[in-house]
Amino acid sequence: MHTRTCGELRAENVGEEVTLTGWVSRRRDHGGLIFCDLRDREGITQINFDPEHSDGDAFKIAETMRPEWPILVHGVVRDRGHDAVNPKLATGEIEVLVDHAQVLNRSKTPPFQIEDGIETAEDTRLRYRYLDLRRPEMAARLRLRSDFTFAIRSALHDRAFTEVETPALFKSTPEGARDFVVPSRLQPGNFYALPQSPQLLKQLLMVGGVERYYQVAKCFRDEDLRADRQPEFTQVDIEMSFVEQDDVMSQLEDVLSDAFARVGVEMPTPLRRISYWDAMDTYGSDKPDTRYGMELVDLTDVFASSAFKVFASAANTQGHVVKAINAKGAGTWPRAQIDKLAKVAATFGAKGLAWIAFREDGSMNSPIVKFFTDEEMDELRRRCDVEPGDLVMFAAGPRRESDEILGGMRSHMADALNVPREGHDFLWVVDFPLFHWDEDGQRYEAEHQPFTLPHLDELHLLDEDPLKMGSCTYDFVMDGFEAGGGGMRIHDAELQLKMLEFMGFTEERARAQFGFLMEALEFGAPPMGGFALGLDRVCMLLAGTDSIRDVMAFPKTSSGSDLMSAAPSKVSLAQLKEVGLRLE
Amino acid sequence: MHTRTCGELRAENVGEEVTLTGWVSRRRDHGGLIFCDLRDREGITQINFDPEHSDGDAFKIAETMRPEWPILVHGVVRDRGHDAVNPKLATGEIEVLVDHAQVLNRSKTPPFQIEDGIETAEDTRLRYRYLDLRRPEMAARLRLRSDFTFAIRSALHDRAFTEVETPALFKSTPEGARDFVVPSRLQPGNFYALPQSPQLLKQLLMVGGVERYYQVAKCFRDEDLRADRQPEFTQVDIEMSFVEQDDVMSQLEDVLSDAFARVGVEMPTPLRRISYWDAMDTYGSDKPDTRYGMELVDLTDVFASSAFKVFASAANTQGHVVKAINAKGAGTWPRAQIDKLAKVAATFGAKGLAWIAFREDGSMNSPIVKFFTDEEMDELRRRCDVEPGDLVMFAAGPRRESDEILGGMRSHMADALNVPREGHDFLWVVDFPLFHWDEDGQRYEAEHQPFTLPHLDELHLLDEDPLKMGSCTYDFVMDGFEAGGGGMRIHDAELQLKMLEFMGFTEERARAQFGFLMEALEFGAPPMGGFALGLDRVCMLLAGTDSIRDVMAFPKTSSGSDLMSAAPSKVSLAQLKEVGLRLE
Repeated sequence: MHTRTCGELRAENVGEEVTLTGWVSRRRDHGGLIFCDLRDREGITQINFDPEHSDGDAFKIAETMRPEWPILVHGVVRDRGHDAVNPKLATGEIEVLVDHAQVLNRSKTPPFQIEDGIETAEDTRLRYRYLDLRRPEMAARLRLRSDFTFAIRSALHDRAFTEVETPALFKSTPEGARDFVVPSRLQPGNFYALPQSPQLLKQLLMVGGVERYYQVAKCFRDEDLRADRQPEFTQVDIEMSFVEQDDVMSQLEDVLSDAFARVGVEMPTPLRRISYWDAMDTYGSDKPDTRYGMELVDLTDVFASSAFKVFASAANTQGHVVKAINAKGAGTWPRAQIDKLAKVAATFGAKGLAWIAFREDGSMNSPIVKFFTDEEMDELRRRCDVEPGDLVMFAAGPRRESDEILGGMRSHMADALNVPREGHDFLWVVDFPLFHWDEDGQRYEAEHQPFTLPHLDELHLLDEDPLKMGSCTYDFVMDGFEAGGGGMRIHDAELQLKMLEFMGFTEERARAQFGFLMEALEFGAPPMGGFALGLDRVCMLLAGTDSIRDVMAFPKTSSGSDLMSAAPSKVSLAQLKEVGLRLE
Repeated sequence: MHTRTCGELRAENVGEEVTLTGWVSRRRDHGGLIFCDLRDREGITQINFDPEHSDGDAFKIAETMRPEWPILVHGVVRDRGHDAVNPKLATGEIEVLVDHAQVLNRSKTPPFQIEDGIETAEDTRLRYRYLDLRRPEMAARLRLRSDFTFAIRSALHDRAFTEVETPALFKSTPEGARDFVVPSRLQPGNFYALPQSPQLLKQLLMVGGVERYYQVAKCFRDEDLRADRQPEFTQVDIEMSFVEQDDVMSQLEDVLSDAFARVGVEMPTPLRRISYWDAMDTYGSDKPDTRYGMELVDLTDVFASSAFKVFASAANTQGHVVKAINAKGAGTWPRAQIDKLAKVAATFGAKGLAWIAFREDGSMNSPIVKFFTDEEMDELRRRCDVEPGDLVMFAAGPRRESDEILGGMRSHMADALNVPREGHDFLWVVDFPLFHWDEDGQRYEAEHQPFTLPHLDELHLLDEDPLKMGSCTYDFVMDGFEAGGGGMRIHDAELQLKMLEFMGFTEERARAQFGFLMEALEFGAPPMGGFALGLDRVCMLLAGTDSIRDVMAFPKTSSGSDLMSAAPSKVSLAQLKEVGLRLE
């Protein structure tokens, strides 16, 4: 319908006859003329109705048209004149003098302004998502997601990866979260499950000789939705066979850096690799943001004979530590503000928070400093690189818990102090522990997945100290978020069964749930490994927003509702009866 | 792990040291040497174990290895010698003399041979799909699908279409077939539905200003599965706004011909357009294969005063016809074979089948010819271009039913006579009727979709003769299959409501089911139209197979089962209780 978009006309187009389509954005009457910002997905162009030039219908349209009416206009591009140039607009040098216009539809008054930076409640935006998406910033986010998705597909396709679609209606194979189930009508009383990930299917594809697989896969988890979770999400799922871990990781680095480059983001390779334990030790996190310091400092030996009993006791207990971080700048905070940090630390598992504020005037403010000797203080200052204005916070207790508390505080303080984090930060965290201990189930649980390949040289630890066992795993960390994760898989049927049994599966239950995988492994499964990239999260980081909902067209609320269509909703009893069910 | 694939070594690589990985395919002992075909996804390479050259382990491996063991071999490429060249193999000029080998895994004996052209029952192939996929022809089909999918994505991306992911968990909005429903745990007693297509969502995206949208979308229909149906299937979903029908169709032609070209298939544009009624009239089908003739011939006027009452009566009834097709070559069939055709015709709705076999010797065999005058026979011979060896078949009765019977017979005879159909055949069928009459529901139903734009100049027919109303629709026909379909959409809220009411929706029910769409249309919806390409079917046609199951990695049986994982299956009562359900 149009010959040009609303984003492309420049001074060099002056004199050109054009047809534009778009939505009426702003309308201004000025000295007998009517000006209007016409908006399409490419931008905004000022159009100008003049009773001298515009035909009668066009001017009548201009007088009656209201915001968000889609219209078509025909006219000539002209210079705005030096004074009227709008430097904020790409098309700001020109305007289109309309001679003919056509109303394509009318619009009710929208519930919020269609422009960037609105303060409308998110529920309203979701209720009228089709209007929210018209806002330039939302349109740009959808475009960015489309571009990045295409970029990573291209990077994979160029490297001879085969895209394979795996079924959405599959077998319930719990992987930690709850399945969404789908009742079958042809087999009443039986259910499909929506995949939590195509993990098993991609392993079967490796057994099937695909060798290099990818899929941009919709995944489903029926979890209680936290702020940044959605019941359905998308991952770029990748798997390779006849490979070793280094093959997979360097191939992934190639693919990712190519994909990021295609959207203008540089990811230098090879990526830094930090082991899980080093990451925990240094940053208190298995997904550290390394664009800033504030590293964890081990002070265990310093306080071995401290008068401060909490520290001394931790320092003298096997597996316990005394550690600290130094939040530069927070030492000037008023006492009341510092006191509130204990509550923050509690959300990371701390029972309290010991701290020392080093005031600008050289004095100290701290509930605990009175217990410390000069030697202890000197060593603390030295190791923590203390300057006036610093706030040092401590954790004392079991190593992992202490690391996690300080890791949480590190991230909190970086936000609170607005620590600059420019550009993007990419790294691998590798060698995750194979198991963790599940207190509720009183059993060992896979840290990554039950199919993850252990460090084969540590298999003897299975009987001795299973929590010390490492695994062939690698998480891709971007800007302090777990943006992806992967690992090598067990391709030996016996080892797979042994691992499942160790995790408390009876052979019978293992066969019932994963029998088809274990059977497949018996038919010449090759060595394999793979990866899944969290597409929503990566797009969120690329778009510079703080919610994955901003990079999804139609996200759900935390109760799993689509506010626009009012899903989920009731279905008829007849429909339930057909699938052999009734309401409780 | 490997330096080369099993498909790439040629005479010019002789002397090169290589490492290959793959599966043991065939093993032959010959004069103290052991030969083996090693297979990976790229091809087959002959490897050769020789006790003089191979290290001891390697030769021991060669002696014990069994089919489908994955192995790694290192060795040197050498000429096979003129006599031993295998011209059927791309690598047939060379072999690799192994010096070192490694067993990567063992394998049980597979239930069928891993090679092309096996006659194994499909159930067995599906049960062990991971083995079936190792067969070269299946691997090639998956690759073709991946390539074509990437081709059409590229064609769309290059034309500034934005890929948008729409939710899989959405509202139940019946579009003709049954929905799969998904119980909600966070809102017990409520259900999501899996989308039959993203139709409503893409229209909302147009209201949202996306302008050019695409998605390779998984769709779900809970239907009784016929041979070539699957509960989940994939469509390339496309929508555009601020467009007229010709804009959409020419853009689609560009996209499709670009995509086909990228996989080596020429689709000349502009495509031929046949109206729905012309297609029915000429080919008895709204998805005709025009690579061969056998067109329907109208003989209604010829038999207006025939002594054969069946024909005369049809010829004298308003809206009834007498039509025929000429199946060249079938006139020589024995009577018994011809008689069986009546049963075939019955599957297309015929109550019987009138026919004339023109024998090679100039005689005729027919149960009805005795009723015909010489003039009738002469005109029949002329219009049907009769030659010796022809079989003319008739249908007499209501126009559409007669066309459908002959259309079905045309297609059946083309198969039976092995009529050559070379290359691919692409065309548009346009201007479908807006409604058909639903006998069961006693109401008018949308032929395409309830959101399809009617021919606006025919709106007056709504009261006079609704079945005569045309719609702004276009089906993409490939090789006699409906490969895609599209249309312009209603963007006027009032017209949409009027159409839904005409199709028997109360305003209340329309608002309950489609209220969010109708509300969206009230906020300045632009003119829009779109398309959906049936990806499974197009890939099937490109692969030259006759079942979409052959181009899906893990298809389901006609009872909706996945034979490999035994889905669907039972879930625990606790799991049901959580979503507020119990078994009937």
